[in-house]
Amino acid sequence: MAKVAVMGYGVVGSGVVEALDMNKVSIRNRVKEPVEVKYILDIREFKDDPFGHLITKDFDKIANDPEISVVAEVMGGLNPAYDFTKKLLMAGKSVVTSNKELVATYGAELLKIARENKVNYLFEASVGGGIPVIRPIYACLAANEINSVMGILNGTTNYILTKMYKDGVSFESALKEAQELGYAERNPAADVEGHDACRKIAILTSLVCGKNVDYNKINTVGITDIDELDVVYAEKMDSVIKLIGASEVFADKVYSSVEPCILNNSHPLAGIEDVFNGVLINGNAVDDVMFYGRGAGKLPTASAVVADIIDCVRNKDGFEKYSWEPSDSEFVAPYEENKASYLVRIQGEANSVQIEKIFGDLETVTVADSEFAVITPYISNKELDSVLKELPVIKKIKIIK
Amino acid sequence: MAKVAVMGYGVVGSGVVEALDMNKVSIRNRVKEPVEVKYILDIREFKDDPFGHLITKDFDKIANDPEISVVAEVMGGLNPAYDFTKKLLMAGKSVVTSNKELVATYGAELLKIARENKVNYLFEASVGGGIPVIRPIYACLAANEINSVMGILNGTTNYILTKMYKDGVSFESALKEAQELGYAERNPAADVEGHDACRKIAILTSLVCGKNVDYNKINTVGITDIDELDVVYAEKMDSVIKLIGASEVFADKVYSSVEPCILNNSHPLAGIEDVFNGVLINGNAVDDVMFYGRGAGKLPTASAVVADIIDCVRNKDGFEKYSWEPSDSEFVAPYEENKASYLVRIQGEANSVQIEKIFGDLETVTVADSEFAVITPYISNKELDSVLKELPVIKKIKIIK
Repeated sequence: MAKVAVMGYGVVGSGVVEALDMNKVSIRNRVKEPVEVKYILDIREFKDDPFGHLITKDFDKIANDPEISVVAEVMGGLNPAYDFTKKLLMAGKSVVTSNKELVATYGAELLKIARENKVNYLFEASVGGGIPVIRPIYACLAANEINSVMGILNGTTNYILTKMYKDGVSFESALKEAQELGYAERNPAADVEGHDACRKIAILTSLVCGKNVDYNKINTVGITDIDELDVVYAEKMDSVIKLIGASEVFADKVYSSVEPCILNNSHPLAGIEDVFNGVLINGNAVDDVMFYGRGAGKLPTASAVVADIIDCVRNKDGFEKYSWEPSDSEFVAPYEENKASYLVRIQGEANSVQIEKIFGDLETVTVADSEFAVITPYISNKELDSVLKELPVIKKIKIIK
Repeated sequence: MAKVAVMGYGVVGSGVVEALDMNKVSIRNRVKEPVEVKYILDIREFKDDPFGHLITKDFDKIANDPEISVVAEVMGGLNPAYDFTKKLLMAGKSVVTSNKELVATYGAELLKIARENKVNYLFEASVGGGIPVIRPIYACLAANEINSVMGILNGTTNYILTKMYKDGVSFESALKEAQELGYAERNPAADVEGHDACRKIAILTSLVCGKNVDYNKINTVGITDIDELDVVYAEKMDSVIKLIGASEVFADKVYSSVEPCILNNSHPLAGIEDVFNGVLINGNAVDDVMFYGRGAGKLPTASAVVADIIDCVRNKDGFEKYSWEPSDSEFVAPYEENKASYLVRIQGEANSVQIEKIFGDLETVTVADSEFAVITPYISNKELDSVLKELPVIKKIKIIK
C-alpha cells in the first residue's frame, strides 16, 4: 500500500483525488499495490465532500509521517509551496507538482535538493496539462541535440484566438465568452498577457538546455492588442494567429520569446484549436516531433499529476535525472538580438518608394484602405525597431512559416 | 564507459551508429559516461565504412562478451532476430529494437524473459519511428483507463494518400512517385496492404490492454483499392482519406481494425500529411492526446533506438515494467462485430425508395453520374454486409467524425 498526500484541494487537487479513486483498480493492477490518499492539505473546510475526512490544516503531519512517500503539491503560487516542497524533499519524500510558477522560479534548486536526497521532483503537469511532454522531451533529448522547442502553451488564449478567427469577433467579446465558459479567469491577466506561457516555455527550455532559463528575461507579449484586422491579415496570408512560446537553442545562448505569431496553415501547430495545447520540438536526429492534447482542466491535469505519483511509487529506489544548472545572466539573449520575419502594419497608403528605400523590395499585404503591411526579411528586433522609428507603424507581428 | 552492440547494419542500424557518434558529447554529458559501439553484427562486408572495423559475423562474440550490457536489434524479420534476442536477454543483456514484426509476434514472451532476467526489452522505435509514443502511452496509462488508440502508423501509405488528395493523381501514380523518392519499397506490399500498420496497432493495443493482441485476428484492408473518386467523395464531405489503425478497448474485448477511413478535417489526425505519423489515444482522465512526427527514416528511427539504449544504460539496476500477458482467442473481436458508420458507394442513380426501404432515411452523397453513395448509421459489419448483398455495391469506406 502506497500512501500519498495531496496539498491543495482546488480544481487540480480534487481532480487528483478523483482520478486516483476512479481508476484505483487499474492503478493497483499496474503498480502492483494500492495507491491511497492519506491526507489532503487545505486551509478550507470540506465537510460534505466524500474525501472531507482526509483534510488537514497541519503541514507537519504530512512532513513527519513516515508512511507518506509521495506528495502532490497542487496548491500553486510560490509561498508556502516553495518552503513545503523543500522540507518534503529534505525529509526524503518525492514531490510531484503542477506548479509552473514554482518550477520556473526554483526548479534548478529543488531538483538539486531532490537529487541530493535521492528522491524525485517531477512536474509533468506544469506544462501542457495532461499531455505527456516533459518525459517524452527528456527521452528525445537522450538521443538528440535539440535545436528548438515551441508551443501553444496556454489554452485560454488559444480559445480566444480560435474564436476571433472562426467567428470574426473582437478580443473583448471572445474573452467574455471564454470567461462565461470557465476557460478564462475573472482576472485573466496571467493568461492573456502571456505570463503563463512564459513560465512554461522557461521550464521546457531549461529542461532542454540543462541550464536555468530565467523567465524574467523572456520578452513576453500577450494577445490583448490583437484585433480583428490582424486576423484578416493572417487569413489573407493563409495563416492563423497563435500565441507561441518559442526557444532556439544554442550551446551558449538561447533565444526565447512569447508573442502572438502569424503561423502558416501548413505548420503543425496551426491546426491546434480551442483550449488544446501543442508542443513541437526539433532534434538533430528525430527532426520535428509534436505532442498535443488538453493543456488544462481538472482531470487532464490530474492525469499528469497521477502519472508522476505512480512513477514515484513504482521507482522507489530509482529517481529521474531531470536537472538544470544555474546559468549566467547572458544565457537568455536580450530581446534586441532575437531575429524573425515580421508583418508590419503601417498607416497610410502603400508608398512603395518610401518602403523600398528602407527595406529594399518587399512583399506588401493590403486588407484595408487606411493602412497596408509589409513582410520584412529575417531581421533582429534591434535593426527592425530602428528602421520602424521612421514610419507610422501600427504594430509588428512575428511570422512563422 | 558503456559498450553496446548493434545487430544489423542496414538503414536503421547505420543510423543508430551515426546518431551515437554525431551526438556523443551531449550523450556523454547526459548519461555521465561515454556510450560506445563495440560490435556491429552483419553478414555483409563494409570495408570502406568508417565503422567497418566493428563489423563481426559472429553473434556469439556479442552474447559472450561481458562488457556488452545493451544490444540494439535492428535487423528486422523473425529469424534469427527472435533467437538472438532470447539468447541475449537470457544472458542478462538488455535488448532494444525497431523490429515491429518480432515485437508483435513474440512481445509477450520476450517481455517475460526480460523481466525474469531483470533486464529491459524496449521497442520505442517499433511504432511511430522517432516519435516517443510507447513510453508516453505507458505514462498516460498509469493514470488513465484507455478507451481507444488509433493512428496513422505508416508513412508510405500516408504519403501516397496525401499525393492522391493534393494532386488528384491515381494510386499507381502516387506509388510510383513514392518509390522514386525512396518512401516506398520496390515491393510495397507490406506497406500498401496495411500489414505494417497492422503490426503496429497490435503492439500499441497489447501495451494498452496488458493482453496480447494477435495481429492475425485484426481485419486489415490496405489502400490499393482507393481510387480518385473516393478522394472526391471525401473532399465533398470536408474530409480526407487516411489509412487508420484503430482499437476500441474494453475490459474483456478489443475491437481492432486497419482500413482506409474518411476522416473529417477537424479530426486531429486529418492534418497529418506526407510521411508523418500520428498516434491518438483517449483516456478517461486525460481525454485526447496525440503524438506526431516522422514515422520512419534512418535518423528519426535511430533517435528512438538510441533513446532506448540510453535508457538501459541509465537504469542499469532498474527496468521498465512494460508487459502484456497471453490472451484467449476471443480477445480480439471478429471483423463481423466491429461497428462503424460507413460511406457506401452504389452503382446506378440514387433510388431513394430502394435505399429507404433498407436503411430508413439516409444522407446521400453524389459526385458522379453513374453512382451515388449513402452514409450509413453506426452498424456492425455483419448487419451492414448482409444488407449490402442486395445492392450493386462498389465499396464501403469507414467514416471517422
